[in-house]
Parts: sequence; C-alpha cells; structure tokens
Amino acid sequence: MNKKEFDLENQLLSKYKKEETGDGISGERLAFRLGELSKIGLTDDNGSRRPGFSIEEKEAKNKVIAWMKEAGLSVRTDGAGNVFGRLDGKNPNKPVIMSGSHVDTVPNGGHFDGALGVLSSLEVAQAWKDTGYIPEKPFEVAVFTDEEGARFNGGLTGSEAMMGDSDMDALLQKRDFDNRLFEEVIKDVGLNVEGFSQAKRSHSEIESFVEVHIEQGKRLERENLPCGIVTGIAGPYWLKLTFKGKAGHAGNTPMNDRQDALVTAGQFIHFISHLPQKISESAVATVGNIEVKPNGTNVIPGEVIVYVDIRDIFKEDRQKLVDNIKQAAEELARPREIEVVYETVHDVLPVPVKEALQEKMAEAVRESGIKPYYLSSGAGHDAMIIGHHLPSALLFVRSREGISHNPEEWSDLNDCIKAVQILKKYIEKLQVNA
Amino acid sequence: MNKKEFDLENQLLSKYKKEETGDGISGERLAFRLGELSKIGLTDDNGSRRPGFSIEEKEAKNKVIAWMKEAGLSVRTDGAGNVFGRLDGKNPNKPVIMSGSHVDTVPNGGHFDGALGVLSSLEVAQAWKDTGYIPEKPFEVAVFTDEEGARFNGGLTGSEAMMGDSDMDALLQKRDFDNRLFEEVIKDVGLNVEGFSQAKRSHSEIESFVEVHIEQGKRLERENLPCGIVTGIAGPYWLKLTFKGKAGHAGNTPMNDRQDALVTAGQFIHFISHLPQKISESAVATVGNIEVKPNGTNVIPGEVIVYVDIRDIFKEDRQKLVDNIKQAAEELARPREIEVVYETVHDVLPVPVKEALQEKMAEAVRESGIKPYYLSSGAGHDAMIIGHHLPSALLFVRSREGISHNPEEWSDLNDCIKAVQILKKYIEKLQVNA
Repeated sequence: MNKKEFDLENQLLSKYKKEETGDGISGERLAFRLGELSKIGLTDDNGSRRPGFSIEEKEAKNKVIAWMKEAGLSVRTDGAGNVFGRLDGKNPNKPVIMSGSHVDTVPNGGHFDGALGVLSSLEVAQAWKDTGYIPEKPFEVAVFTDEEGARFNGGLTGSEAMMGDSDMDALLQKRDFDNRLFEEVIKDVGLNVEGFSQAKRSHSEIESFVEVHIEQGKRLERENLPCGIVTGIAGPYWLKLTFKGKAGHAGNTPMNDRQDALVTAGQFIHFISHLPQKISESAVATVGNIEVKPNGTNVIPGEVIVYVDIRDIFKEDRQKLVDNIKQAAEELARPREIEVVYETVHDVLPVPVKEALQEKMAEAVRESGIKPYYLSSGAGHDAMIIGHHLPSALLFVRSREGISHNPEEWSDLNDCIKAVQILKKYIEKLQVNA
Repeated sequence: MNKKEFDLENQLLSKYKKEETGDGISGERLAFRLGELSKIGLTDDNGSRRPGFSIEEKEAKNKVIAWMKEAGLSVRTDGAGNVFGRLDGKNPNKPVIMSGSHVDTVPNGGHFDGALGVLSSLEVAQAWKDTGYIPEKPFEVAVFTDEEGARFNGGLTGSEAMMGDSDMDALLQKRDFDNRLFEEVIKDVGLNVEGFSQAKRSHSEIESFVEVHIEQGKRLERENLPCGIVTGIAGPYWLKLTFKGKAGHAGNTPMNDRQDALVTAGQFIHFISHLPQKISESAVATVGNIEVKPNGTNVIPGEVIVYVDIRDIFKEDRQKLVDNIKQAAEELARPREIEVVYETVHDVLPVPVKEALQEKMAEAVRESGIKPYYLSSGAGHDAMIIGHHLPSALLFVRSREGISHNPEEWSDLNDCIKAVQILKKYIEKLQVNA
C-alpha cells in the first residue's frame, strides 16, 4: 500500500457494524475525524509523525478546534498550547469535568494513541449537542501538548504545565532532536516561555478528569472485550543494582573458586521474575538493561550492573516489591561473596484510580452491555499527571496484538464507539454528586 | 618504588633459602638472569613490555643466546625467530628432548610468565655442564616467538611456525597495534615471510617437549605446594547462544504474558555454573560476554546473545559438557517459548598430557620431596601447540594470589628452583626409554 492509497476512514468503516443506539454518537463521524487527523504527518509507512511543538501537532490541534466549534464548544488555548473546548452546562460556576488526551505522536507512531482520546471526548460533546442534552456541570474537552515527548525526550509537557508541575529550569536547558533549545522551538508554534509559565490552572477549577486511551497491551484482546476499566497507573521505579564479584581467567579459575558476578545476576534476574505475582496482579518487574564488566568471553565477570523497572498501581505494594527485590539480591549474592550496591535512579509515584470513579465507570460499562474488566496501566498518560492532584479515571480500548507506537497500531471502530458510549454514560453519571 | 629502585634479582634473593643439593642448579644464577631479562622493556609500573617481534623481545632473545653459549649449547635461529640452543648428547642422531617457553610479554605484564620456562630449561643445561653430565639424547632449549600475541591479537606464533601450523594467509592480513602489516613488522627484527614459511621442523626430529610455567591460578597456593603436574591443557570451545523471545513494554505486559529472553538467559547462566563439576574437576564453563537487545530499561528483552567459554582437558568430556549446556538451554527456554540458536565460534582442541609423562613427572616430584599434585591448565601455552602433534608435558609453579599478566606477578625463588630440580630429574628420566 502506498501513501496515496492509505485511507484510514474507509479501513475503519469497512469492518464497522453500526448499532442504532439513538444516543447521538456517530461511528461515521469518528471514523472521518480519525481519518482527517491521520493525514497530518502521515509517514511513508502510513504511520504518524506529529512531534510535540511541531507544525503538524499544531495543524492537528487546529482541526480539533474547528470541530470543537462545530460541537458548540467555546475554545481557549493556554500558554503551553493546550486546547480546551468548553461547554458551560447548567451551572457554569461549578468545577469542570474534563476529558481529553493528546494529538502529538512518536516519530513513526499510530493513528489511535492520543487521537482517539481527544475525538472520543469531542464525540460526547457533539452527541449532547445533537440530542439536545445539557450537562449540569461544565465540561471541557482537552488537547494536551507534547504528551509523547519525542522531541525533548521527556513528555507529558502540556498536562504538567496545566497542573503547575513543569520544571521550567529543566525545560529551558533541553535541546530537541535538531539540537534547538526549548525556547526557540516553541516559538515556531507561536508560544513563548512567559506564557508557558502561566499555563497553570487552579486545581479547584477541575472536579475530575477522564481519558479514553488504547490499551497498548493484549489483555482486552485475550479477554475478548472492547474496553476495560483502569484501576491505576503504575508509576515506574528504577532500581540500579551493582553486583561486585571478582574478575578472573575463564580457563584458570576452578568452578568452586569463583566470585562470578554474572552467575549471581543471572540467578537474580530469573528469581525476581516470580516476585511481582506474589504482590498483586498489576505488579511487574523487568530487567531490560544489563552491563557486564569487562564483558570478555574468556574473563569471569567481575561486575554486573542491572536496572530493574518496578511498577505497581499502589505505592505501598510497589514498595513491598522493591523491598523483596532488594532482599532477594542480598540473599542470592551472599553465598558467592558478591557485594550488592543499590541506587534509585527514577521514581514516578503510581496513581491509583479512586474506587468511586471505577464503580461509576463499571456501571457505565455494564449499561453498555459489557462485562466490567479491570486492568492497570503500565505506561504513563496525561491522566497520570492530573491524577497526582485530582481524581482521574482512564478507560482502555482493545488494541490489536497490543501493538503501539507503530504504524500497525489498530483498534476496531466498534470498540472505539463502545468506548465513547461508556465515556458519555460515565460523564453523565458524574453530573449528580452522590 | 620507582624504576631506578626496581631490582628483581635482589627481591628474589631476599627471601631465598638456599639448599645444598649438589646438582649444579644455582638459585643465584636464576635470580640474576630473571633480573637481567626484567630490565628489558621495564614499564613505569615495574612491569614488562616485550611484545612479539619487538626490539625488546629480540634483545631478550639475544641475552638468552649469550647464556646458551655460556652453557655450551650450539645456537640456531629459525625463520620465525625461534631460538634453539642444542646439546648433542651421546647420540646426536636421536630425536631431541626439547624444553622451553617464550620471552615476549603482554603490554604491562610480569617477569615470570615465559621467562621462567626459558631460564629453567637453560638452567638444566647449565647444571649438566657444571656437573659434567652428558645426556644420552640431544637436548634443546627453545625460545618461541610471540607466544602472548599482544601485537597481532593472536599468539603462539613461533611454536605454530615450528610445528607447521601457521596460517600464513591469515598472518599476512594481520595489522598490529600501530596498524602495520605482519610482513612489515617482522622486518624490524630481521625476519621475512619466506624464512617464516620455512620454519617448520619435521615432527620426527622431536621426541617430546616439556615446559615450566607459572600457574596463573591459585590452586598450588591453596595446596601449599611449590609445583604441580599438569594433566592437560583445556582448549577453549566458545558456544554462542541466541535466546529469541519477544520484546514488549515493561509496564504494559503482565508477568504471565511475557517471553523475556533475559529471564531465560539469566536462569541458564546460573544453571550451567553447576554443570562442569558434574563432568570433571578440570571442566569449566563461563559466560563472560552477554548482549541484550534492545537493552532499554523499560523494554522486555527480545533477544539475548550469550557466549559460553567451555574448557576441559579431554575432548570427550568437553563435548559432554557442551552437549549438557545445549540441552540445558533448550529445556530452560521451552516453558517460556523462547527459541535458542547455537553457533560454535571458536574451537581449540584440548591437549591431555600422556599418562606416561605425568608418571615420570610425578616420580621427579616425589624425588624432590614434594607431594605430587595434579592440575589442569585453563590457558593455552606453547606446550599446547606442540602437544597437538607430539608428547608434551607441563609443570606449573605456584603464583602468588594467582595474579598474572600484571606487574604484580610473582613466584618465590625457592619454588622456581624446585621446578628446575624437577625438570632436570624429569628430563634425565627421559634419557632411558622404558
């Protein structure tokens, strides 16, 4: 398939089985809008390239702004380039229910990550307009800037700016993939540092946030379910462990006279793969990165550095897992007289989703004729940043083969529409405080 | 200690306890000669730098040539720069008993590796001359060129040339640490390619070879013994294993849905560390080199390449260990649906020392008042190259803390002299065929 033949709208519609629900939600409209966004920054592989602060990201935002206006929303852009399309509702002074995601993508990404969340929220507003529903509370559709962080090797930039979590000093030091400074780059899309610094919104303006996002995993596919309720976002904790043994000649050192750091590290890597399941279903621990010194085929490794990526949705559970992993390292190292040194190199707090919000989401799921299925998010999202301060919910949509950040990324239109239906019901439930 | 204060001769003599054996062997002479060689290529760390084909290696050979003449030997140099000091004995037409080692060193090596073997052999001839002993068979003291291979990342060049094992095409392609071609480098020390190609000796000229060498390990130190009888030289077999799993997001992939190549590789590395001891005391297996793909902290490793260095002194035992290691890889990989691919990347046949030679060496050890202790050699030596074709024996001398290829390399003079005594007795025993 070459670029000219690529037609996301018709690919989506070709397998779409329309249901008459009378709720104002339109699969055809969602497919059209996903198709329109896919044309902005389309790559030779039919993937998407819309880095944060690029002309393409801005063009995608402008498309969304036009659709926001079509849906009757009043549009505002903040100093970080975040876009908010607002519906005042019956009580404009109440805190807002906000829903959204992002339209930037990784360099050769897919057409659902981010875009689906923005367009789902927009579809809710549009459906309300088309059916004449007016919510009690204000509603805002949000498009956050630079979620993926492909340009500055960071990410979540827009949502952090809105929450007042930006580290401006760090941002001003950053250089992008073309070696240009942050300040210079944001000028390309009409932003400036002063405006950026003022993007923070008062937390009291917002009641809660909800995001629809593709799963980027295979659990919903395995369960044969279109959508799943996210119980929490598992913040990553990176533990660096250095195993210090003794280098030696691979030929001259008998097996019973070795302090082989890699034998212990290997045993450790295998052993800790069994620990997360003892903590919780959502806990994970991964050794993705290892450094062996001196890494010569005929030299017994004297030192091995291992990075463990540890995640869970509750801080306490994650800490327990970290502790168990450290304990395992010590116990496995002792018999071989290997020394272990620890260092925490990265620590993002996990964000559990409040049970009350999960319950409301489960009701909406049930009312849409789907069995509620709970799962955690291993990856960070704008909902994680907002969730550090405010109640945040997250609804996952089935991803084909779990593929993401890749042109092959795919979610069926029927699944996407189910997500919009659930999102709409969920937000409507939030109009009445319990 | 600075360079000027370094005095190997007096360091050796300061701890020397002279025994009156009346066998003509002189600790003072051996200390003096080790001291003289240590001055050639002395480094700032008081180590030795005499790369193969260097002026320093040639200078050291010239020193030895002068001492050979002093010991009554007739000296010949072959086209590979190997030096042979010959004593015709009573039956000059019989095949020769050869003994020797090398005088080249690694870039910042010690003063015993190689030098001790050459000077021990020379000391035997000198002791014979001083006591008026004439052997039945011809005896040759050999100095082999470029054993360490520091210059061309190879080694054993001289002994291979003598045995007719050189790969001239490969040598002519090689470039040294200064990016100079082999042909150009050997001209510096008066050699040429034609002469080099003609260095091969008829194997029927040589009855057997014996080498004294420092252990470069800690077994004799642990046993509190000055010398040990080498049972065989464990040729290295390098097995490359590629574990192929599936890469995935460290956050989004549940523990029970992973094909983590590093978890399996880790389990494998630990598991196989227990296999050699089930085969033999001399068997060893080491994973010194590992490559993880993509090696990102938040990515489940999709592929892991592991190199296993497998050694034993009998080919059959080594093959059994290779087979057991392959079997372990397959059995451990299966439950996680990891694919394993093997490749043999290096295979030097092991050289067992004939039992008859070990027995003769044991007699000589016993007659020197020492308990015979048998051990294998994990590292290659000139005796390994010769041993592929002819009976070869090897006697190890205790090394302090097993340190080698380092200025700290050390063997006490009393241990060195014990080795010369044993070597002399051993060679005398070879004069009468059983």
